[in-house]
Amino acid sequence: MKSIALLGGTGSIGDSTLDVIAQHPERFRLRSISGYRNIAKLIEICKRFRPDRVVVANEQSAKLIRDALAGADFTGINCGERAEILWGADGLDAIAADAVVDVVVAAIVGAAGLSSALAAARAGKIIALANKEALVMSGSLLSELCLRHGARLLPIDSEHNAVFQCLPFAATARQGQEGLASLASSDRFGVESITLTASGGPFRTWTYEQMKKATVREAVKHPNWSMGQKISVDSASLMNKGLELIEAQRLFNVSPDKLQVLIHPQSIVHALVQYRDGSVIAQLGAPDMRTPIAQVLGWIDGPAHRIGSGVQALDLSRIARLDFELPDLERFPALGLAIDAMRTGGNAPCVLNAANEVAVAGFLANRCRFTDIAACVAVVLHKMANSAAPDSLEAVLQTDAQARSLADEAMASLRSRYA
Amino acid sequence: MKSIALLGGTGSIGDSTLDVIAQHPERFRLRSISGYRNIAKLIEICKRFRPDRVVVANEQSAKLIRDALAGADFTGINCGERAEILWGADGLDAIAADAVVDVVVAAIVGAAGLSSALAAARAGKIIALANKEALVMSGSLLSELCLRHGARLLPIDSEHNAVFQCLPFAATARQGQEGLASLASSDRFGVESITLTASGGPFRTWTYEQMKKATVREAVKHPNWSMGQKISVDSASLMNKGLELIEAQRLFNVSPDKLQVLIHPQSIVHALVQYRDGSVIAQLGAPDMRTPIAQVLGWIDGPAHRIGSGVQALDLSRIARLDFELPDLERFPALGLAIDAMRTGGNAPCVLNAANEVAVAGFLANRCRFTDIAACVAVVLHKMANSAAPDSLEAVLQTDAQARSLADEAMASLRSRYA
Repeated sequence: MKSIALLGGTGSIGDSTLDVIAQHPERFRLRSISGYRNIAKLIEICKRFRPDRVVVANEQSAKLIRDALAGADFTGINCGERAEILWGADGLDAIAADAVVDVVVAAIVGAAGLSSALAAARAGKIIALANKEALVMSGSLLSELCLRHGARLLPIDSEHNAVFQCLPFAATARQGQEGLASLASSDRFGVESITLTASGGPFRTWTYEQMKKATVREAVKHPNWSMGQKISVDSASLMNKGLELIEAQRLFNVSPDKLQVLIHPQSIVHALVQYRDGSVIAQLGAPDMRTPIAQVLGWIDGPAHRIGSGVQALDLSRIARLDFELPDLERFPALGLAIDAMRTGGNAPCVLNAANEVAVAGFLANRCRFTDIAACVAVVLHKMANSAAPDSLEAVLQTDAQARSLADEAMASLRSRYA
Repeated sequence: MKSIALLGGTGSIGDSTLDVIAQHPERFRLRSISGYRNIAKLIEICKRFRPDRVVVANEQSAKLIRDALAGADFTGINCGERAEILWGADGLDAIAADAVVDVVVAAIVGAAGLSSALAAARAGKIIALANKEALVMSGSLLSELCLRHGARLLPIDSEHNAVFQCLPFAATARQGQEGLASLASSDRFGVESITLTASGGPFRTWTYEQMKKATVREAVKHPNWSMGQKISVDSASLMNKGLELIEAQRLFNVSPDKLQVLIHPQSIVHALVQYRDGSVIAQLGAPDMRTPIAQVLGWIDGPAHRIGSGVQALDLSRIARLDFELPDLERFPALGLAIDAMRTGGNAPCVLNAANEVAVAGFLANRCRFTDIAACVAVVLHKMANSAAPDSLEAVLQTDAQARSLADEAMASLRSRYA
C-alpha cells in the first residue's frame, strides 16, 4: 500500500489522480491533500477519501474546513483520528516531506508549487511532477536536490510522461534521479532526438495578421485538451511547448540540440524518441491525464507494472489519420524565444516563464493583443537574460519578481502605445 | 567481440546483416555463413568477411567454392586457417550449434531453415530469427527447445522486432526465452493487445472481382518493401500478415484474442502494443531491415544498447501523414484463414503454411488465379486441420508433406475447372 500526498488536489490533475486512486483502493491511500480556492470541493474530496492531513491557503480557510469536517463523521483513513488541518507554504512543505508518504503528486500550478517540490526532493520522495514551473524556474536546483537526496522525478505531463515511456528505463528497476537523467544522455542508449508533439493550438492555420486580432475567447479554445485559461493561451502561442522543451531538457539531461517539436493536430502521439539504429519509439493515447498518472503510479508499484486508469483502449482505425508538420517559428515566435532561452540557459528560462505569465495575464485582461505576449517576453529577455542560473529558492523568486516587474513595465508601454 | 553464424547469407536479410556487421568490426565477427544458389555472391562475401566456416547446398558447390577461395589469399578471421567448407543440412546444423558462436542469424527461407533453427535452440544460442516458418510450422517445438536449453529467440522480422521493442523486456537484462514469453502474457505488465501493421499490399484498394484477374506482375509489386516473389504475393493476399500473427502468438505467448492487424499503407509504424493504462507504445522507422537487425545485435551487446545501422533518422514532417484502417476479411480471405488457424492451433498453422506455399507457387507459374490461393488453402485446411500439433521435426515435415500433396490435388482440380 502506497501513501500519496496530493499537492493541488482540486484542479484537473487532482481530479484525474483521485479518479485513478479510487480505482485501486488496495494499492493507494490518500495520505494528504492541499487545495487553494475551491474549499467546497476540497471538503467533498476529504469526506470521500479521508486523508489524515489537509492543507489550505490560510487560517481562515483552515477554520472553514475544520468546521465542515467536524460535522461529518470523518477520521483519517491511515491515522484513524480527525484530519489535521494545516495552512500556507509551511503546511505544503510539511505534507511534501511527510515520512509516511511514498509519492508526492506535485500539481500546484506556477511558482506557488516550487517550495513544496523542493521539500519533497529534500525528503527523498518519488515526485510525480505535473508542475512545469518547478523545473523551468529553478534551473537545475530541483534535479540537483533530487540527486543529492535520492529523490526521483517522474513526469505526469503527458508529453514528458510519453518520453519517459519511450526511454528504456521506464522498464528497469527503480533507481535515483541519476538513472533518469543519464539514460537519455548516455551514449550507449543511442538516443538521437526527443520529439514532443504539439496540437498547434486554435491558431495553427491562422496568419500572423489574423492572430493580431485574436480574442481571448478564440485563444482559450484548445482543440483537444480541456485545460485552464493560462495554459490554453500558452498552447495557442506554442509557448507551452517551449516551456515543455525546457522541462524535458532538465528532466532527461539531454542537449538542447536533441530536442524537437512536431505539430500533430490530433494529439494522439504525445512524444517520440529517435534511436541510433533508426528505430523510433512513440507513445500514443487518448488525451486523458489519467493515463500518465496511472503509468507513474503503476511504475512505482514495480518496474514496468501497468495499472488500469479507466481510459478506453485507443482505436486507431477510428481515428484513421495522423498528421505531422514542422512548427512555424515566424508565426509562433514564442516557441523560438523559448528555444533560445533553453540554449542560453542561466536565468533565461526563469525570466521567460515570469514575463510570459505577466503578458498572458495582460492578454486575458484585454490589456494587450495576443501577438504582444511574445513581444513582451522578448523585451524582458533582452533586458535580463544574461546571468547565471539562480542557485537557491530565494534567488529564483528574486529573478522571477524582477522579470515580472520588467514585464509590467513592458505591458504598460504597450498599453500607452495603443492609448 | 561477438561471433555470428549467418544462415542464409546471400539473401536480402544476409545483405542487411553483413552491412550492419561491417559497420561494427570492433563488436562483431562473421564466424560462419551459409549460401544456397548464389555461389558467386557467397565467394565475394567470404573474401570480404573471412569467415572460418562456409556451408553450401551440396558437395559440388563445396568443390566450387573451395577452388575459388584457394585462389584467393583467404584465411578465417578467427581461426587463422583456410575456411572449412561444409555442405547440406548437417553443415547447417553444425554451424548453428558451433560452440564459438554467440548469435545465430536464422535467415534461411521456408522449411529448409527449420532443422538448423532447432539445432541452434538445442545449443542454447541467441537466435536472431528471420525465418517465419520455423515458428509457424513447428508449433511450440522451437520455443519449447529454447526454454529447455536456455536459448533465446530475438525477432528480426520488422513487425515482431517492433513488438519486441514496445514490450518492456527489450530494456531489461538478458534472460531466457521464458522472460520473452512471459512478458507479454504476464498480467502485471498489462498488455491488452498487440497490433501488427500491414501495408495492405498492391491490392489494398482493389475489389475482389478485380483481384480475380490480377497478374503475377501486379501481385509482386509491393508498395514499400523490396522482397522476394513468394513473400510479395503473401503480402498481396495478406497471408503474410496472417503468418506473422501466428509467429507473434508463439514468440510472445499471448492469447490469439490479443493479436490484431491494422492496415497502414505508409509502412512507417510497424507494430503497436496497447497497455492497460491507456498507453500505446509504437515502433516506427523507415522500411529498412538494417534497423531491426541492428536493434537485435545492439541488444545482445547489453540491455537497451543501440548501435548504428546506417539507416537515416525518420523525418515525420516529410512523411506528413499516417493512415490506419481495419483489414477487410471479405476481400482478403487468406488473413481470415490464418486467424482461424491460429485460434484452432494443433496442426492447422503448419497445414496453412504448406498449402499456401504450394498455391502461391501455382499462381506464380500462372496455374491459377490470385483468388484461388486462399481457396486452395481453405480446402486443405478443411481436409487436414483436425489433429494435434506435430511434436517432432519428423512429424512437422510429415504434416508439411501431406498438406503439400493435398494442395497439389486441390490445384489440379482448379486447373481442370479452367480447362
